[in-house]
Amino acid sequence: MDQGNTAFLLFSAALVLLMTPGLAFFYGGLVKAKSVISMMMLSFGAIGLIGVLWVLYGYAIAFATSDGVNAPFNIDLTNLGLDAVFQEASEPAGGYPLIAFAAFQATFAIITVALISGAIADRAKFGAWMLFAGLWATLVYFPVASWVFNFSLADDGSFADGGWITYGLQEAFGVGALDFAGGTAVHINAGAAALALALVLGKRVGFAKGAHVPHNPPFVLLGAGLLWFGWFGFNAGSELAADGVAAIAFLNTIAAPAAALLAWLVVEAIKDGKPTSVGAASGAVAGLVAITPACAFLTPLWSIVLGLLAGALCALAVDLKFKLGFDDSLDVVGIHLVGGLIGTLYLGFFANGTGLIFSGSFNQLIVQAIAAFVVMIYSFVVAYIIGYAIEKTIGFRVTVEDEIAGIDPIVHGEEGYVLDAAK
Amino acid sequence: MDQGNTAFLLFSAALVLLMTPGLAFFYGGLVKAKSVISMMMLSFGAIGLIGVLWVLYGYAIAFATSDGVNAPFNIDLTNLGLDAVFQEASEPAGGYPLIAFAAFQATFAIITVALISGAIADRAKFGAWMLFAGLWATLVYFPVASWVFNFSLADDGSFADGGWITYGLQEAFGVGALDFAGGTAVHINAGAAALALALVLGKRVGFAKGAHVPHNPPFVLLGAGLLWFGWFGFNAGSELAADGVAAIAFLNTIAAPAAALLAWLVVEAIKDGKPTSVGAASGAVAGLVAITPACAFLTPLWSIVLGLLAGALCALAVDLKFKLGFDDSLDVVGIHLVGGLIGTLYLGFFANGTGLIFSGSFNQLIVQAIAAFVVMIYSFVVAYIIGYAIEKTIGFRVTVEDEIAGIDPIVHGEEGYVLDAAK
Amino acid sequence: MDQGNTAFLLFSAALVLLMTPGLAFFYGGLVKAKSVISMMMLSFGAIGLIGVLWVLYGYAIAFATSDGVNAPFNIDLTNLGLDAVFQEASEPAGGYPLIAFAAFQATFAIITVALISGAIADRAKFGAWMLFAGLWATLVYFPVASWVFNFSLADDGSFADGGWITYGLQEAFGVGALDFAGGTAVHINAGAAALALALVLGKRVGFAKGAHVPHNPPFVLLGAGLLWFGWFGFNAGSELAADGVAAIAFLNTIAAPAAALLAWLVVEAIKDGKPTSVGAASGAVAGLVAITPACAFLTPLWSIVLGLLAGALCALAVDLKFKLGFDDSLDVVGIHLVGGLIGTLYLGFFANGTGLIFSGSFNQLIVQAIAAFVVMIYSFVVAYIIGYAIEKTIGFRVTVEDEIAGIDPIVHGEEGYVLDAAK
Repeated sequence: MDQGNTAFLLFSAALVLLMTPGLAFFYGGLVKAKSVISMMMLSFGAIGLIGVLWVLYGYAIAFATSDGVNAPFNIDLTNLGLDAVFQEASEPAGGYPLIAFAAFQATFAIITVALISGAIADRAKFGAWMLFAGLWATLVYFPVASWVFNFSLADDGSFADGGWITYGLQEAFGVGALDFAGGTAVHINAGAAALALALVLGKRVGFAKGAHVPHNPPFVLLGAGLLWFGWFGFNAGSELAADGVAAIAFLNTIAAPAAALLAWLVVEAIKDGKPTSVGAASGAVAGLVAITPACAFLTPLWSIVLGLLAGALCALAVDLKFKLGFDDSLDVVGIHLVGGLIGTLYLGFFANGTGLIFSGSFNQLIVQAIAAFVVMIYSFVVAYIIGYAIEKTIGFRVTVEDEIAGIDPIVHGEEGYVLDAAK
Repeated sequence: MDQGNTAFLLFSAALVLLMTPGLAFFYGGLVKAKSVISMMMLSFGAIGLIGVLWVLYGYAIAFATSDGVNAPFNIDLTNLGLDAVFQEASEPAGGYPLIAFAAFQATFAIITVALISGAIADRAKFGAWMLFAGLWATLVYFPVASWVFNFSLADDGSFADGGWITYGLQEAFGVGALDFAGGTAVHINAGAAALALALVLGKRVGFAKGAHVPHNPPFVLLGAGLLWFGWFGFNAGSELAADGVAAIAFLNTIAAPAAALLAWLVVEAIKDGKPTSVGAASGAVAGLVAITPACAFLTPLWSIVLGLLAGALCALAVDLKFKLGFDDSLDVVGIHLVGGLIGTLYLGFFANGTGLIFSGSFNQLIVQAIAAFVVMIYSFVVAYIIGYAIEKTIGFRVTVEDEIAGIDPIVHGEEGYVLDAAK
Repeated sequence: MDQGNTAFLLFSAALVLLMTPGLAFFYGGLVKAKSVISMMMLSFGAIGLIGVLWVLYGYAIAFATSDGVNAPFNIDLTNLGLDAVFQEASEPAGGYPLIAFAAFQATFAIITVALISGAIADRAKFGAWMLFAGLWATLVYFPVASWVFNFSLADDGSFADGGWITYGLQEAFGVGALDFAGGTAVHINAGAAALALALVLGKRVGFAKGAHVPHNPPFVLLGAGLLWFGWFGFNAGSELAADGVAAIAFLNTIAAPAAALLAWLVVEAIKDGKPTSVGAASGAVAGLVAITPACAFLTPLWSIVLGLLAGALCALAVDLKFKLGFDDSLDVVGIHLVGGLIGTLYLGFFANGTGLIFSGSFNQLIVQAIAAFVVMIYSFVVAYIIGYAIEKTIGFRVTVEDEIAGIDPIVHGEEGYVLDAAK
């Protein structure tokens, strides 16, 4: 067992866990003051629920072992309650105890679910969200994580094969889909579900461009800062070893979001005359999303180019919701779905070695597109069905009166800020 | 020397140090806006004072070496100013430099003292608190840390024996008390001192259920997020090595607080109809407290059960202060004392191997109860005496007028928020 | 390759990157509510711009290899776009991949530039700042980093020689300048540039002692907490290995700022009767600055003495601006320049082994003074020229009307807080 790698994996997990509170501030600062608590609770609720479900059966689904290509659904009954990985920890078979890997992956499941919540700001019932979160994690995230991240670790900790997106496509095309840290399983997945929920819940009262002003940009910047910090664990940690590839992933996790931050601000300055702090935060996150699948497969310069592309295109993409008329309130689609697609497809062109410009072959691009498309459609369809069923039964959306009044006191019995000197 | 373990220990220390600013936000968000600065300064003052005292003589008391069972009080004069561990660092005798361990333990001393301050919100003088903090650390924390954490490291870094709670009880009962990361030394210890100070200072003006509304729940969530993040260093770091046990401790530090968060919200929803963000934050912390002594000794499923218990019971325990009439303002007793007792006693039943249900023997439960009881009584009595002496001499509590006016401008010459556009 | 050291270096880099968002809160809380966004954007803009420039050519300048003593300016064309270190990562020649080192140093470049922005609060144009940031990084930070940090790593990862401040002075004086983590290259460097910009931009409207009240002390404490946390990566990480020296640096990064925090509060209590939260935060940062060059070269007790000195002297130094009439708005000079000088010169007296009191020789003090002086003068002069050129061409300062109105809506089209219940 390598203690350097184990330390690396455990701290990476800690960093990724911190991303969800970070997301709560990123999202919380973007909504109005009257729903900041509700918004943050969608993330904190996900930490609690998905943390428990992951231990109970999530890992057993996502990392079920199987021979050869993994089936779309699979479950490893010996790992219900993480029992097998707990037993293994006293004498780790590979380079690190598998329970460290289970902890690391737990944090991925949590943040992916929490990401979706940005689409339903200001108008969702907490209980309905929790129900959705549990069902979507079970039916979508856990199996999709298996498609991408399940490398069926061999006894010595090496990757024996991989999820069908990696391994299965490789058999057909000579190259597997590249997704180093979750462009498909995390960002496209969450973004597609967010679009589905935005359609199910419908628009907020008064939805229009500029109608909903972020109530606390410093919180948005705090969230972006914590997200960026945690993303080092997300991207570099996905190497599962503190080596040269992890270091490349790490460096690119500085380069791409830095470039994307600049690109977003330039687009804003050109379009509206004023670069905003929300734009800086959004640009950084767009760059982080785009580099997620790609961070180990690009040189630093190509990472900067990807960052510039993602920052500029996502800055434009966030206006789509006004043109197309869906209220993806905090731009989960414009940043995570679009950014995830950009990063995933970009590898088809520029992946070191196998991309079109290096290899002259379209195969990498084709498998990237297949992987992105399958995850997107699967997540969207299942999320729509779950969301629709909840809306039609217990109801997903609060009443119009409650939404206008502000949902924090009604749903949570709390106010975000009690600054009145008389209190 | 193992550089993986050294890196693990140092980053764990960094994470635990961040817990005290995290606590400052957890506590700061819970008080009224007019005393947010005072509340946060109780934590930041502790960082400064205990950080210095630890170097001067705290480590020399807590980690004095001795033959066999450690005496209740002991001091290693060669480590005044951390001199001996500084000299050792150039050629570490064990798996890591002892000065890394000294840094790690410094952060435990700091957070334990800071925890107490939640009991005296809105009404304490800063200078009196600093005096209390220094005396309590010297007379209570440093020796009690020795009882629990002082394993008298052998030259090769292995544990030669242990504090009397571990080693001494083992001689009598065949099993030592289990306290992996500080259920007794940190949480029961701080919780009992908090109860003493709540009694010494008396109730706030207008103390009653619902009278004091948290002024900034987002800050409470920020604090909870940073505490959770830091707690990975606290619990997993206590293994002092990046190995399978650390990984188990880490995973359980996700599982238990996640379950406790859910349990607290369910209790609130049943009792009051509304799950609150303060409840989510408090539930997570209650679960973190309860898993602290137990994190290395439970399977993930038993950790979830402990989390559910701690979350539900602490959610009920925080109302005790209204029934019994002591103003433990921010629930240090209800969360840290009760949560610490739950986690410590739970091991008597469910500790892997030695707990009652696995071994059929009550011995583990008995030693757990002895350890908890001794620390609780010792801390309570000494804290009460120190607090009482301060109140009767220089005074611990501000005047009623100042308390009603809000103590920030009076004690610190500052206001928490100056948002008036005219300024 | 050592994976423990690689993990150590990568997480250190992550911690240092988090310092700049931390700084954004430290600075953001100190200004008035009407310019909090502008203030924070000076830091976030630096993350984007310097992150990109570092990859493009910053590393190639700062870590150009050369034979013997490095020239003042140098560039390694093979590392434009970090190409050579990217290629090396697949088979690291030393104890860690050089690209991990490049990532670590990227975060130093970013925070150093961001530090300067405290001098120009409330009155700077964002575009002008970005232009200044890029030019100053290129002309000052990148070469000065080479003077101090460029050890021209040998193939086995050991230090073959060093920047002229380390190696060049050693030839002449028998001892090189000691600067473990950047007292000269970071703090004196940024502090001198801040003084230059304060003079170029001139005083804020209504500049006078007590005229500008921090609008959000909790944010200042948040910033201080994140900075302290990140500083462990900064100081201990500068050892580039998780060993005994890193552990000493780590411990001293607790001891010195803890002492400085106390000293600052004592000075305030004596001078004004009230210890403030802004003072606690500033004291901690002053101690962190002073221990930066010294953290590996002092015993813990001498670190405490340095902390007490830095806390007390910086608490007095921040009033200089009112006596001398320059508006270094957020005390970059009083904390970073003065604190950096204190720490750098203190080593001349108390450095373990070579300091005056241990060796009886003035040589260490002389080289410390030379190093500090050269960096200070170079940075000041070039910063002044750049700032002056910007002010006279595109203009650096906003109009008086905009400054009085508050620059956030004008420059960024945003408001820091929208708490009105009607919105």
